[in-house]
Amino acid sequence: MINITIYNEYIHELQNEKVGEIYPEGIHGAIKNLLSEDKNLNIRTATLKDINESLSNEVLADTDVLFWWGHVAHDKVPEDRVEAVYQRVLAGMGLVVLHSGHYSLPFRRLMATCCRSKWREDGDRERIWVVEHSHPIANGIPEYFDIPHEETYGERFDIPKPDDVVFISNFSGGEVFRSGCTFTRGMGKIFYFRPGHEEFPVYHMEVIGRILRNAANWCYTENKVAPTFGHYPKIEG
Amino acid sequence: MINITIYNEYIHELQNEKVGEIYPEGIHGAIKNLLSEDKNLNIRTATLKDINESLSNEVLADTDVLFWWGHVAHDKVPEDRVEAVYQRVLAGMGLVVLHSGHYSLPFRRLMATCCRSKWREDGDRERIWVVEHSHPIANGIPEYFDIPHEETYGERFDIPKPDDVVFISNFSGGEVFRSGCTFTRGMGKIFYFRPGHEEFPVYHMEVIGRILRNAANWCYTENKVAPTFGHYPKIEG
Amino acid sequence: MINITIYNEYIHELQNEKVGEIYPEGIHGAIKNLLSEDKNLNIRTATLKDINESLSNEVLADTDVLFWWGHVAHDKVPEDRVEAVYQRVLAGMGLVVLHSGHYSLPFRRLMATCCRSKWREDGDRERIWVVEHSHPIANGIPEYFDIPHEETYGERFDIPKPDDVVFISNFSGGEVFRSGCTFTRGMGKIFYFRPGHEEFPVYHMEVIGRILRNAANWCYTENKVAPTFGHYPKIEG
Amino acid sequence: MINITIYNEYIHELQNEKVGEIYPEGIHGAIKNLLSEDKNLNIRTATLKDINESLSNEVLADTDVLFWWGHVAHDKVPEDRVEAVYQRVLAGMGLVVLHSGHYSLPFRRLMATCCRSKWREDGDRERIWVVEHSHPIANGIPEYFDIPHEETYGERFDIPKPDDVVFISNFSGGEVFRSGCTFTRGMGKIFYFRPGHEEFPVYHMEVIGRILRNAANWCYTENKVAPTFGHYPKIEG
Repeated sequence: MINITIYNEYIHELQNEKVGEIYPEGIHGAIKNLLSEDKNLNIRTATLKDINESLSNEVLADTDVLFWWGHVAHDKVPEDRVEAVYQRVLAGMGLVVLHSGHYSLPFRRLMATCCRSKWREDGDRERIWVVEHSHPIANGIPEYFDIPHEETYGERFDIPKPDDVVFISNFSGGEVFRSGCTFTRGMGKIFYFRPGHEEFPVYHMEVIGRILRNAANWCYTENKVAPTFGHYPKIEG
Repeated sequence: MINITIYNEYIHELQNEKVGEIYPEGIHGAIKNLLSEDKNLNIRTATLKDINESLSNEVLADTDVLFWWGHVAHDKVPEDRVEAVYQRVLAGMGLVVLHSGHYSLPFRRLMATCCRSKWREDGDRERIWVVEHSHPIANGIPEYFDIPHEETYGERFDIPKPDDVVFISNFSGGEVFRSGCTFTRGMGKIFYFRPGHEEFPVYHMEVIGRILRNAANWCYTENKVAPTFGHYPKIEG
Repeated sequence: MINITIYNEYIHELQNEKVGEIYPEGIHGAIKNLLSEDKNLNIRTATLKDINESLSNEVLADTDVLFWWGHVAHDKVPEDRVEAVYQRVLAGMGLVVLHSGHYSLPFRRLMATCCRSKWREDGDRERIWVVEHSHPIANGIPEYFDIPHEETYGERFDIPKPDDVVFISNFSGGEVFRSGCTFTRGMGKIFYFRPGHEEFPVYHMEVIGRILRNAANWCYTENKVAPTFGHYPKIEG
Repeated sequence: MINITIYNEYIHELQNEKVGEIYPEGIHGAIKNLLSEDKNLNIRTATLKDINESLSNEVLADTDVLFWWGHVAHDKVPEDRVEAVYQRVLAGMGLVVLHSGHYSLPFRRLMATCCRSKWREDGDRERIWVVEHSHPIANGIPEYFDIPHEETYGERFDIPKPDDVVFISNFSGGEVFRSGCTFTRGMGKIFYFRPGHEEFPVYHMEVIGRILRNAANWCYTENKVAPTFGHYPKIEG
């Protein structure tokens, strides 16, 4: 079993009627539904309101892969939670960062670039193309799929060079975006996945579910042999 | 001075009136005009008709960076010329592969994948975005530029993972393409650049000229210290 | 189940008494013993003598991951077997290339560089360090391990830039080597692993077995959705 | 002209007689001597004592490439200088980080990993091998060179995957180290170079000078077209 924790700031759903109708159980609830099809995943959720408990050190220590959705309250996440997530990733916890989570503090700390991009909200059609079919996160995904309406993000997306660019998006208004990117930091594997604007029912799409389940498995680092650092006596022989 | 040789199969221009009007001096002539703005480049051209002379071993030995445009006559390039280009790249000659040159034999030999992609000819608008602004090939290039009408190429483009993806294209019909990709093979640096369909005046665009001049300089390997291979006695000390 | 085929040219063991004593069942037999600890692997072997049958198109079509050990008879492998292995890798078969297999024709065709390195046979101590602990191939492997005596390989190892360098070796005579390297070509994943000179009992070491079992699992591409190439009509919408 | 600033904490040389004899003008003075052979470099120095002036915002704004040597006083560098260096790198300033500078705050902030490694001080022989001969930083460097006595660093060096690993070291005591690594962050190019322990006359070696001059040129980002971020209206056409 892989222990998953889904963090969602859970604000839009409560404050915006339209969003609340799309996600009556919250975005975290919708993602949990998608992940639940994989019986190897043991799933918890956490929200900003009770983040000190739902994303405590104990929860993080018991989390193999953390999903992160946030948008309007990045700066409300307590500093010690940001630090704890960051340290757990270096120690081997996987991290799946969703949509506007690209500007969350844990992701920005791990990337160490500004992590910004261009954006606009015109309800463009997003066409997502698989670029690396052999990557486990692309397993079972068709050559392309469409999201009928999405918020548009555009390059330059200011991130360090990804290990793999699994998906690239075409927006009907003319932008491109590296929408599925993997990174490794310390012992931790990270997957950034672009779609998921709160005003569109993206987390009700089956193809998105498949990608998130693939990501949950891929981000899990099984190895328990950690490197040691510091003074190291000369090895005999 | 950097010694440049531009190879163009030079067939469309002679057989297709429309193409001939766009490129009265041949595609190689138009590219030569673009490169000539850089006074540090010493430029020759070569065509299929006289390839044994214009791309002889002597010419290749004296070439620092080779540009390659081909489309309908990839299989007419003599095997020993393909082999000679391949070996020169491993020995440090730069190679700039243009448009349909992605299916040329030297490029396929160097990539060792099938190098195919999706394509269609509907005169789409191609919008090319800079993804890696710090790369020398992007020097002076605006965030994006448009080619009003181009042949469409679409991912999956079957290439090994590039060292850098400098440009990504959005086509108005919905495709994306990694349009500017760098590779290193042996001592040689390679740049693949997608635009350049013969039926559109792409090689008369100043922004294309800037990219090609940047590429000519970037693909040049200055180092003359080549690695040695084979039996190597134990070093004392 | 993952279908494994182990190819070994199987010449040293029959012609050199010392090698025959180390590997009475052949190097392929020793590797099979190591892999057999993983009950998810379904293992066959193939040798040069009967390569047309033991590595037929049918066997390759039924192989998920191919292991390759060869040294003195690279050029005896029939061209159509080289081509068949190459095409199967692009179509998604994994390939684990061992030791002097770096100069085998399938590996050279896939890398498209000269694939040579420095080498000498002085029975050096090889110390192999894990560089990427989070990579699945490093799972369970200690920070370093020693092979008491090995053939020495030294950089520059003329390969394209690997996706990941999992292991780097220190030789007691002063060389370094990127001993565990991953690549992706088409749909196929490739792992090159340096150790395994026939005159030393490397394939009787448990740590080597763990690495090979990890590699067998990592090189398996589960995705059955292959990209399509060629003319592709405009997508409506 | 490329504007270079060399930062050195300048403590060992003043406090330790042996170090002071090796570097009577300070490590920054020795590095300045090495760089001065390249007449295209316009060189300033900065030290910890007067860092608020010698590495002021004005100096940084006028610096194309910053060299950084620090060891015992990483935490004495004022936070706003760390932040200013970090922001300037993202905006396109090059950064060459030397030896124990791997644990400096600007480098750790840019890498966002722990940046630690193994180490010991036994005066080992370090043999440095060129791995990527075509990289401009390796221009003119022999296949390998020795530093007779150096502090030993050993892998796992906890850094994100480098863009290029140009050099790998073999230490006579058995370690390996990725001693020359390149990274890109934002518009800035970064080179980490391992050698340079204060107790050995490394910065008096001509081969080290050549590498540092190469690095000064390679880390310079010429492009002045920076990406824009934030809301971006739909492009017509």
